[in-house]
Amino acid sequence: MEKRVAVIGAGVGGLAASKACLEEGLLPFVYEKGDKIGGLWNYDGTEWTDSTGPHVYKSLVTNTSKELTAFSDFPFPEDWAPYLTHQQVLQYLHMYADHFNLRKHIQFHHEVTQIEKAWDYDVTGKWLVHVESDGLQKEETFDYVIICTGFFSKAAIPSYPGLENFGGIVIHSNQYRTHDKFVDKNVLVVGNSFSAGDVAVDVSTYSKQVYLSMRDGCFVFPKRGAGGWPIDVVTNTRWRLSLPEWLNRMIFQRFLEKDVNYEALGLKTKRKLFHSKVIANDFILNQIIHGKVKTRPGIKMFFDHGVEFEDGTRLEDVDAIVFGTGYALTTPFISDDILSDDIETREVYKYILPARLKHNTLACVGLLAFHGSAIPGLELQSRWATRLFRGDLVPPRLPEILGSIEAQRQAMYDRFGKHGIWVTTAYYCDDLAADIGCLPSLLSLAFSDPVLALHMLLSPAVPPTYRLVGPKSWNGAREAVMKCWEKNISGTRGRVVESSRKESGTYLKLVILAFVLLLSALAMTYFFGIR
Amino acid sequence: MEKRVAVIGAGVGGLAASKACLEEGLLPFVYEKGDKIGGLWNYDGTEWTDSTGPHVYKSLVTNTSKELTAFSDFPFPEDWAPYLTHQQVLQYLHMYADHFNLRKHIQFHHEVTQIEKAWDYDVTGKWLVHVESDGLQKEETFDYVIICTGFFSKAAIPSYPGLENFGGIVIHSNQYRTHDKFVDKNVLVVGNSFSAGDVAVDVSTYSKQVYLSMRDGCFVFPKRGAGGWPIDVVTNTRWRLSLPEWLNRMIFQRFLEKDVNYEALGLKTKRKLFHSKVIANDFILNQIIHGKVKTRPGIKMFFDHGVEFEDGTRLEDVDAIVFGTGYALTTPFISDDILSDDIETREVYKYILPARLKHNTLACVGLLAFHGSAIPGLELQSRWATRLFRGDLVPPRLPEILGSIEAQRQAMYDRFGKHGIWVTTAYYCDDLAADIGCLPSLLSLAFSDPVLALHMLLSPAVPPTYRLVGPKSWNGAREAVMKCWEKNISGTRGRVVESSRKESGTYLKLVILAFVLLLSALAMTYFFGIR
Repeated sequence: MEKRVAVIGAGVGGLAASKACLEEGLLPFVYEKGDKIGGLWNYDGTEWTDSTGPHVYKSLVTNTSKELTAFSDFPFPEDWAPYLTHQQVLQYLHMYADHFNLRKHIQFHHEVTQIEKAWDYDVTGKWLVHVESDGLQKEETFDYVIICTGFFSKAAIPSYPGLENFGGIVIHSNQYRTHDKFVDKNVLVVGNSFSAGDVAVDVSTYSKQVYLSMRDGCFVFPKRGAGGWPIDVVTNTRWRLSLPEWLNRMIFQRFLEKDVNYEALGLKTKRKLFHSKVIANDFILNQIIHGKVKTRPGIKMFFDHGVEFEDGTRLEDVDAIVFGTGYALTTPFISDDILSDDIETREVYKYILPARLKHNTLACVGLLAFHGSAIPGLELQSRWATRLFRGDLVPPRLPEILGSIEAQRQAMYDRFGKHGIWVTTAYYCDDLAADIGCLPSLLSLAFSDPVLALHMLLSPAVPPTYRLVGPKSWNGAREAVMKCWEKNISGTRGRVVESSRKESGTYLKLVILAFVLLLSALAMTYFFGIR
Repeated sequence: MEKRVAVIGAGVGGLAASKACLEEGLLPFVYEKGDKIGGLWNYDGTEWTDSTGPHVYKSLVTNTSKELTAFSDFPFPEDWAPYLTHQQVLQYLHMYADHFNLRKHIQFHHEVTQIEKAWDYDVTGKWLVHVESDGLQKEETFDYVIICTGFFSKAAIPSYPGLENFGGIVIHSNQYRTHDKFVDKNVLVVGNSFSAGDVAVDVSTYSKQVYLSMRDGCFVFPKRGAGGWPIDVVTNTRWRLSLPEWLNRMIFQRFLEKDVNYEALGLKTKRKLFHSKVIANDFILNQIIHGKVKTRPGIKMFFDHGVEFEDGTRLEDVDAIVFGTGYALTTPFISDDILSDDIETREVYKYILPARLKHNTLACVGLLAFHGSAIPGLELQSRWATRLFRGDLVPPRLPEILGSIEAQRQAMYDRFGKHGIWVTTAYYCDDLAADIGCLPSLLSLAFSDPVLALHMLLSPAVPPTYRLVGPKSWNGAREAVMKCWEKNISGTRGRVVESSRKESGTYLKLVILAFVLLLSALAMTYFFGIR
């Protein structure tokens, strides 16, 4: 009989997990509290309220490009633009669910209220899952559980003196839907990371004035990288990823600071690149020089309709505050002894496996944030978890696991000055893929398929890479990897022009030659292991 | 007795003209049809209708920076951001009117219905001006007339087959106010220049889909130029302006195409840089790779709710069309014999003086478009006109004037492939300033004030330059010129950070050294006239 897996949630993580289950011959039972797949990608136009869950906002576009955002064996349509609207992501998730026949495994309006060890857990490792549906409670026993409830449910708002006295609108960025409530208003956005930047920009077009308060500054990553390629396509090439951090920093920082005066814009951070917060919305730079967004320091206190900043300056006529101050973990349906929500103390190996359980029968998918696209990460977490359940993947022993968790926690703290629970997609994916056995070796490939090997070295680390070799490989993977550049420009050329402008042919050829030489040198370095 | 000047319109041109009149001892009578100064800068939140005049749209920000947008003797406040919201421009115009005591010369609700030669024109050069106010007609005789009714009153929409059958919303960009009517709609924006780009971006955030149709492509000028300076600050430095066009093109084109693949975005133009249309809104590039704006070719025909493009592709569900297809001249209150609206045949010397009149008593201010800021151009046109009226500026004789007009028309046609009526602010201003006698000679300055001379060479050609020497010079001009860089960053640093990041000091010094050497070489070239 097939082993049964309870999958909690039918967002991206839940879909990835149930697909992985089926792939590994496990039978997924997906419990979804709402009535739709896709989780937060369901923008429904409803106004934000305190009780609405986290949804995308109306104008959201991904900050990762489609080639790096896809599931490994299910590419985005070629004629879509390189970045994705939330409507497209949702459509893609529906296509994915249909393609892999996932829908029949999903039960909507089923809210998991509790997960506890089954009576025979010590022997079997089974779990008892309490589910509420239409007011009825039921319990079911499962061989395995994968928790896919996501990272964006619980808003984190620091405590500030006087916030309770503030008389205007106060929301967290996960309640933000459209700018409608903020038109012609003075809006204070608090935060120095993705959400704060996005909301500040979205509100600023029609607001009276946006103030962006940040205690520390940030770097601003543009959407358009060198050569007009999506920035992640450029920064995630395998040869770039193989460079030491200091060299990567040197290259990338020069690019980021080339035409941006962070100090003059009031954005400057004291932290190094890769050790600081990031806003992935270059329009914030424009809105600052347009005067539509004014940068301000951290907050000392709030009052009636105003705020005092750390530099002593004040605003007296703030109509609304949006906190883009991040998220906190929340898994209220499971005991803290099993899985803690406290990121300073929780012990979860590779953010997937709670460390101190007797059996490897419980996994987390998506209980972290990604710098980079989430989808490939959630998919590899799911593959890792199901391989683990099957016994095909054997984690190290407890002392090593705890050592690894502690080292990671410490590294994070040293780097960012506070605890965090996020990973850089590219490095994290390679790590999980190595465990799974689906990370191709460039050296072996160089002999078996040198064209592909060179292409991979020069190209971004796209998810189909993880379907080239190892378990559950996909025969479309090679083509998907080979086409990963051209598919970035196939969706935008809505107007074709016969070039009549003279191009500097010779010059171009020289550049290409120089580039090939450089890359050859890098490839040599790579293959001979000198990093 | 003071000579009387009728100034038609109290927009930017009218304010500049009346100020120039007062400066030259002439008495301005400003007739304004509406009830406000500032003309199109009065955004009043009204919905567009066929009868509303041209107004700015809600989210408009200038595409020229404040140091290059100011009147020559009235700088913008230091704490304003480098680009200006329309609210700030309007506020500035009110400050200007107050500072120079212009209001008492303005009569609101006075619409000029006709301007004709006075009975004794042949002898005196006087004009009879018909004015309607509160339903009453009156006529007054003036020594001089300055027409300042602007360039943006009359929409130019090309004729397309089937447009009359289109069932959705159809407007011209000068009727565009906010995106409200276009939320969740499929919107077709037609045009390849400033307005089309701005409207496409503004609509795209919340629309369902924007299609941008352009017969020819364009270049996209960003707001942020090299080093993070406003782009016009960088491109309008005097040393850059003194370079031959091909060299300037090489430098600038490399900057523009560095990280933009115009072909892949469907934006590519067949024309050379400086010979093509321009969109001054770099967010259009982002919205294309976001898939929010799709580029499309020129239009073959319209039907019910659809459009067919030149490449044979069709859209079947277009909800609205916005034509960003430019403007046409309109001066219905004056006979075509005196001042024609037909840009192919009209004969107006330096876009100010109708060529074939017997007396130099009629001038146009602002009956053209500027590539660059309009304000300094309108101010110099006004100074030129009033100096002309006073007889202090003597135009060449008719054959030379006609030759100059024809040469200009032909150059424009050769360059753009069609007739146009616009100028590049920087070159045009220098030309007018030379006539007026207020263009400082860098060579003389190099001896009298070498610091200022070097500064001017390396700095953008800011309007206060035209108040350093010559008639009506201003003793604040030198300081305004000297501070023209730092005032670009004084308005955005809302958050001050003590730098703790290590800066590459030596490297920076080397770059500065190399730069100084380069500039010295350029300065030498400039002073010795080798261009």
